Amino acid sequence: MKRISFLFLLVAIAAAVGAVAYTSHAFGQGAGEAAPVFGIKIPRGYRDWKLISVAHEAGDLNDFRAVLGNDVAIKAFRDGKLPLPDGTIIARLAWSYVPSEENNKVFGREQSFIAGSPTNVQFMVKDSIKYASTGGWGFAQFKNGKPDADAATLKKCFPCHEPVKARDFVFTQYAP
Amino acid sequence: MKRISFLFLLVAIAAAVGAVAYTSHAFGQGAGEAAPVFGIKIPRGYRDWKLISVAHEAGDLNDFRAVLGNDVAIKAFRDGKLPLPDGTIIARLAWSYVPSEENNKVFGREQSFIAGSPTNVQFMVKDSIKYASTGGWGFAQFKNGKPDADAATLKKCFPCHEPVKARDFVFTQYAP
Repeated sequence: MKRISFLFLLVAIAAAVGAVAYTSHAFGQGAGEAAPVFGIKIPRGYRDWKLISVAHEAGDLNDFRAVLGNDVAIKAFRDGKLPLPDGTIIARLAWSYVPSEENNKVFGREQSFIAGSPTNVQFMVKDSIKYASTGGWGFAQFKNGKPDADAATLKKCFPCHEPVKARDFVFTQYAP
Repeated sequence: MKRISFLFLLVAIAAAVGAVAYTSHAFGQGAGEAAPVFGIKIPRGYRDWKLISVAHEAGDLNDFRAVLGNDVAIKAFRDGKLPLPDGTIIARLAWSYVPSEENNKVFGREQSFIAGSPTNVQFMVKDSIKYASTGGWGFAQFKNGKPDADAATLKKCFPCHEPVKARDFVFTQYAP
């Protein structure tokens, strides 16, 4: 009887530990079709990642952005660690930038802008060996779950990020 | 020897389970001074919560906002569940809205706006019994970890949210 209880305990513990391990693993890479050039797939669970910061690009893009990071990214940003370690993944979500009539009515003036339809999602993946020729970063873009930037477009990512080499080629800074 | 190994295993497991339990518990309420009227303290770990959406208020506020939710909130938003269940907590973070000279140089024009210094953090806490007279919601505002809105100001929160009664008094909608 004692032996059965002990075995039962071990099985229960193994199940619990397994569940935790699965949750962690679920944040690795791997869903759907890979984007060209850097071979990056949509990281599983990225919409659950923690917030790094927000931004708005006016002009042609006219979008709202939220920049999220996986656990490796968030820890490095909070610790101010540079260069960002291998395994860092940064997700840039974007939505159309739309005025909110509903909010403006409450405020009594035209001042409120909210996220509309999603536009696309971009990822930066740090792997200093695999992506050595582009500062250790791989780049990808997806729309509705599918890669939507061709090889020529993705090859323009790194040159654009080069001016912020001092921050390991990442524009976004952590917003406390 | 066998007994020592077993005890060691049990201690190690207890520590692991304890760490998981602590992490979950850390998302409850409770740090620092409570804000007036609704008696809400800063929920522990709120900066780690998942993203609901982003917003920009122009005019006098001139801020950038990120709206995060605890696990109860995120599940309800994703399931489209209304009214939001007791235990829901919504966090509205805000930062000053500033142009990014660095980004504008790369884009070649004035189009980029980023989060500057944090301004304040607001919370909506759902407890249909405790906050029955205000639609089931308690409201609080903090700056630098301290309550910074007086009773008169906090009493204005609910009337302002009443126009969105159909969405359980919450303005923000989930951005996929």
